[in-house]
Amino acid sequence: MQHQFTTNISKQMQAITANGYSVIFNVEGYKELNKQISENNYSTIFIIVDSNTNEVCLPKLLPIIETESPIEIIEFDAGEINKTIETCIQIWNVLTELRADRKSLIINLGGGVVTDLGGFVASTFKRGIDFINIPTTLLAMVDASIGGKTGIDLGNLKNQIGVINNPNLVIIDSGFLATLPQTEMRSGLAEILKHGLIFDLSYWKQFLDLSKLDFADFDSIIFDSIKIKNEIVMQDPMEKGIRKALNFGHTLGHAIESYFMDNPTKKSLLHGEAIAIGMILESYISMLKNLISKEEYLEIKSTIKSIFEDVIFDKSDIQSILDLLIHDKKNENGKINFVLLDGIGKFIINQGVDNELIISSFEDYKL
Amino acid sequence: MQHQFTTNISKQMQAITANGYSVIFNVEGYKELNKQISENNYSTIFIIVDSNTNEVCLPKLLPIIETESPIEIIEFDAGEINKTIETCIQIWNVLTELRADRKSLIINLGGGVVTDLGGFVASTFKRGIDFINIPTTLLAMVDASIGGKTGIDLGNLKNQIGVINNPNLVIIDSGFLATLPQTEMRSGLAEILKHGLIFDLSYWKQFLDLSKLDFADFDSIIFDSIKIKNEIVMQDPMEKGIRKALNFGHTLGHAIESYFMDNPTKKSLLHGEAIAIGMILESYISMLKNLISKEEYLEIKSTIKSIFEDVIFDKSDIQSILDLLIHDKKNENGKINFVLLDGIGKFIINQGVDNELIISSFEDYKL
Repeated sequence: MQHQFTTNISKQMQAITANGYSVIFNVEGYKELNKQISENNYSTIFIIVDSNTNEVCLPKLLPIIETESPIEIIEFDAGEINKTIETCIQIWNVLTELRADRKSLIINLGGGVVTDLGGFVASTFKRGIDFINIPTTLLAMVDASIGGKTGIDLGNLKNQIGVINNPNLVIIDSGFLATLPQTEMRSGLAEILKHGLIFDLSYWKQFLDLSKLDFADFDSIIFDSIKIKNEIVMQDPMEKGIRKALNFGHTLGHAIESYFMDNPTKKSLLHGEAIAIGMILESYISMLKNLISKEEYLEIKSTIKSIFEDVIFDKSDIQSILDLLIHDKKNENGKINFVLLDGIGKFIINQGVDNELIISSFEDYKL
Repeated sequence: MQHQFTTNISKQMQAITANGYSVIFNVEGYKELNKQISENNYSTIFIIVDSNTNEVCLPKLLPIIETESPIEIIEFDAGEINKTIETCIQIWNVLTELRADRKSLIINLGGGVVTDLGGFVASTFKRGIDFINIPTTLLAMVDASIGGKTGIDLGNLKNQIGVINNPNLVIIDSGFLATLPQTEMRSGLAEILKHGLIFDLSYWKQFLDLSKLDFADFDSIIFDSIKIKNEIVMQDPMEKGIRKALNFGHTLGHAIESYFMDNPTKKSLLHGEAIAIGMILESYISMLKNLISKEEYLEIKSTIKSIFEDVIFDKSDIQSILDLLIHDKKNENGKINFVLLDGIGKFIINQGVDNELIISSFEDYKL
């Protein structure tokens, strides 16, 4: 399957209309938040935060909320390692103790762990109550804000448990990025690069020389990235077809991420760091299958390597990652399917790839 | 809100078309099962059973299934006490170990505990895989087969966690009822009576003298009951309005059920036994609010009491049940809302009821 047209991204930067809800930027987003709170007459507003956003982001949000309903804060320890069913059980119990009912609202304030887990908690508590996401990391802004995916990890399997359910509203406030560590910014940049690679050549091109990029206007980069993801998801909300394009870099990236998370002798990788490697590997496979040129592959590899540090894989690492792949949720009938590039800015889904090609992609990555 | 018309129930007893799936009876149901298995080319078929249905029902089902895909059986201990997130975690882990993927099918074979829990497991595993329900108790046939409610209990709160998600198919095989204990049959009868009380006077009337009822034709009673529930759910799938009618008897019934389940000195009550009491209590409240006549109330009370044994409540029981009510999931803004009868065969939702009326309904129940 190929994407045949180039996106024509509007620069009117206030709102993106997704499937039944809106992604709204900055002050307009907060206005909509207060409008919805007022209109829905929520019995209680629960704000789910992790230990980081409780400290850094909540003090900004709280004074903005206009309500006479009680506000309760629910905090859990930051980190992917806490994106578990045990954390959900704790939050379900707290909601129950605080007498949350079906007219309660949950606001998830944090990175992808908070919005994924908080979205799952809200979607399953009393069979689903309203929730609003306020992503505070670049990654969560450009990735988790669209598509309605909620989820938690099971053991070392990422997002093994979850549902697809849209929030009532997503607010993008790039002000939260000011305090984000550089590694976290890079992690988000990986998904931004992916959106260019699979869908929009000109969007991709602006990242070739980062020194020329105007990071002051990060709102524009985020807006365009969300718009690309939204165009894809709107065409295929249940991931039966072209939405799989968003898994570019993720088949291997997820397996790498799981392997590093599960292996105490390795330094842990952020999601975007793993996806960045996955995109290089899967671009190499695309080249081996004559879907992109060597020049295109080298452009992708050098651009990504200019942003992300190299990671070292030995033979046993690679074998363990291959073993994990079989569990990847994109498999159907036991076959490992990849999304590959079909030229930069275009993709092709459901491509079976032999283990030998995967191993050689790791070999080239080292060079 | 009132229901203004009497249902005109078709007796063509093969299939009921619900929201995106069908409820199909007996041999036609199994034909459709094999058709769907063949068409969807499932990688593996997982059958979730409890310790009872594994022994009594599975030997009938297994020879009927026509497939070359592997079939795996997942069993958990029977009983509402096991309708927990811990059971879900065990099943999610087994599915993962057995390499279930997004092209796997789950068949839930059992009573409401199995179909509710198995439906939740399927709806959340890898963000949702296909599932088919084969209810084996009268209660599950007439209640859980329609409406897409899945769920598990949290502590003593019934169905506190869950999602609304429809199965791909429901098969009704009344042959499974042959081995069902009488108490379980009565439990299902409670929901059948409810469907008459809220929606269809003539359907209700046939239960006034059970000796005249032709229980040989149980398929017809089940068919009509499902048809009533389906008519209600189709009009309001997300339970924003008239679907709440199905909670008649359940506001107090659920609280009674939770209280007895949580109290080791009490004999445990089946769901239908608790709902039967709830319907008497809520009919009495309907009478106190001049919504039904004294004659109608006495007809309801004597009919239900002719089927269900009396249960004794002392003052502290009643107070504990009132305390539990505040947690009932039908509450909004802390107010306890009831569905009441508005004549037999009609209902009215969102009726606030004072504690004194509730206490007096328990007093009258004793008489």
